[in-house]
Amino acid sequence: MVYLNGEFTPKNKASISVMDRGFLFGDGVYEVIPVYAGKIFRLYEHLQRLQNSLDAIQIQNPYSNNEWLDIFNRLLSFSSTANQALYLQITRGADVSRKHSFEALIPSVFVEANSLTPKSRTELETGFSAISQADFRWQRCDIKSTSLLANIIYSQQAKACHAEEVILHRDQLVTEGATSNVFIVKDSTLFTHPTGTNILSGITRDLVLESAKYCNLAIQEVAPTLTQLLSADEVWISSSTREVMPITKVDDQLINHGKVGEHWLEIYNHYQTLKHA
Amino acid sequence: MVYLNGEFTPKNKASISVMDRGFLFGDGVYEVIPVYAGKIFRLYEHLQRLQNSLDAIQIQNPYSNNEWLDIFNRLLSFSSTANQALYLQITRGADVSRKHSFEALIPSVFVEANSLTPKSRTELETGFSAISQADFRWQRCDIKSTSLLANIIYSQQAKACHAEEVILHRDQLVTEGATSNVFIVKDSTLFTHPTGTNILSGITRDLVLESAKYCNLAIQEVAPTLTQLLSADEVWISSSTREVMPITKVDDQLINHGKVGEHWLEIYNHYQTLKHA
Repeated sequence: MVYLNGEFTPKNKASISVMDRGFLFGDGVYEVIPVYAGKIFRLYEHLQRLQNSLDAIQIQNPYSNNEWLDIFNRLLSFSSTANQALYLQITRGADVSRKHSFEALIPSVFVEANSLTPKSRTELETGFSAISQADFRWQRCDIKSTSLLANIIYSQQAKACHAEEVILHRDQLVTEGATSNVFIVKDSTLFTHPTGTNILSGITRDLVLESAKYCNLAIQEVAPTLTQLLSADEVWISSSTREVMPITKVDDQLINHGKVGEHWLEIYNHYQTLKHA
Repeated sequence: MVYLNGEFTPKNKASISVMDRGFLFGDGVYEVIPVYAGKIFRLYEHLQRLQNSLDAIQIQNPYSNNEWLDIFNRLLSFSSTANQALYLQITRGADVSRKHSFEALIPSVFVEANSLTPKSRTELETGFSAISQADFRWQRCDIKSTSLLANIIYSQQAKACHAEEVILHRDQLVTEGATSNVFIVKDSTLFTHPTGTNILSGITRDLVLESAKYCNLAIQEVAPTLTQLLSADEVWISSSTREVMPITKVDDQLINHGKVGEHWLEIYNHYQTLKHA
């Protein structure tokens, strides 16, 4: 079952008008929210970011936080799986004819829940590979928009290279991954691109920074250069569904001789305690 | 009536799955093709550009040129209006679950025809205003993709300013409009951004260049600077539905004292002959 515009309906019956601006223009925003042991993780942070994305493109939030929570709980109740990921998408709605500019419409709302199986510590400790690419995305990456074709192209490149992620750089500075934030550790200092229009302000990014503080890592919200990335002691990517994942190879360059670093394990452990706090 | 995945159906009945990657990711491409006096204008150029867009994002073209033509003719036959605009959109299709990377799916195809009323010479001769903005779009503007949120934001800004278009500049060089190509004339030389990844290679852009050659205007496919734009003798924008339109004000700056220039009229006249050739 999925939620679509006020109704709970089987997924294969859920359809929207071809005039929906989400279909015609990628004119919408989304969120992915993990659920651990039945508890929605950092719900209000996600709803706040959703609000920021909606504000940025002038779509009225159709529901209050409590109404969102009701929808989520109802969807989660359809499955007994403890760990799930909520996906929610709001588009500007269907217009009578196609034109770029818009008036106020009734937003379309689609929400689904799928089971989530985070990788185990043992799986993560093998390390993952990434490739690097120039960042040709738009410069409003702070909006979590459904106009995602650039990210699709990158994700397909990663898949073709049997890599976990594409790490992007703009003017030689590492911005983020195609579907994640990126961190490097050098001499016990954590570096990551500052928030702004070039990256999405990840909820998991904040959690990694929170964990790093707890673990007494020095933090510099300064974008590492591509050269610094390749010579880092540790490289991690983070996202709501991947949590914090160690990257041990970027392009042909091994990171830390291809071994997962010591700081990653500290952060991973603290992150696990936050999930179940 | 509209065409959707093999069927002709009333527009208000035409719906697609929420799992369509066009809806979830803006993972699709489109074309707009004008029809004058019942004749599809520059059909094969549009189908070639469609093919280029499809190739760029690895979607198989579901139809041959003749099959496209059959669909277009059938749609056009539902209306007796002589001038129409065909809109066609191909998305990667519906997947069983949401993930950025893709496998081969059955593409979704949506086509509609709407009446088209090009502005008259008298209307055009009043001139139009534009605003200028930094170009924050992605750097694959050569792909005519449905991931259009940036263009939506610009078009809404134009509307809020009662302007016809937003003229974009990247690093002080004029790229194109949010939904058009841009030309300036200075000392009887036409300047426009060269084709490449920063602009869409417009079919109408080519027609304007063809007309300019016919009218013995010197042509420089060199991007004008923002300063050159504001001090140009003439500024035009072009698109399939707007044809070639004179801009007589950019931001607060009048172009040619707010009067439509002499070269525009020559180009306009030649363009009209091409339409009915």
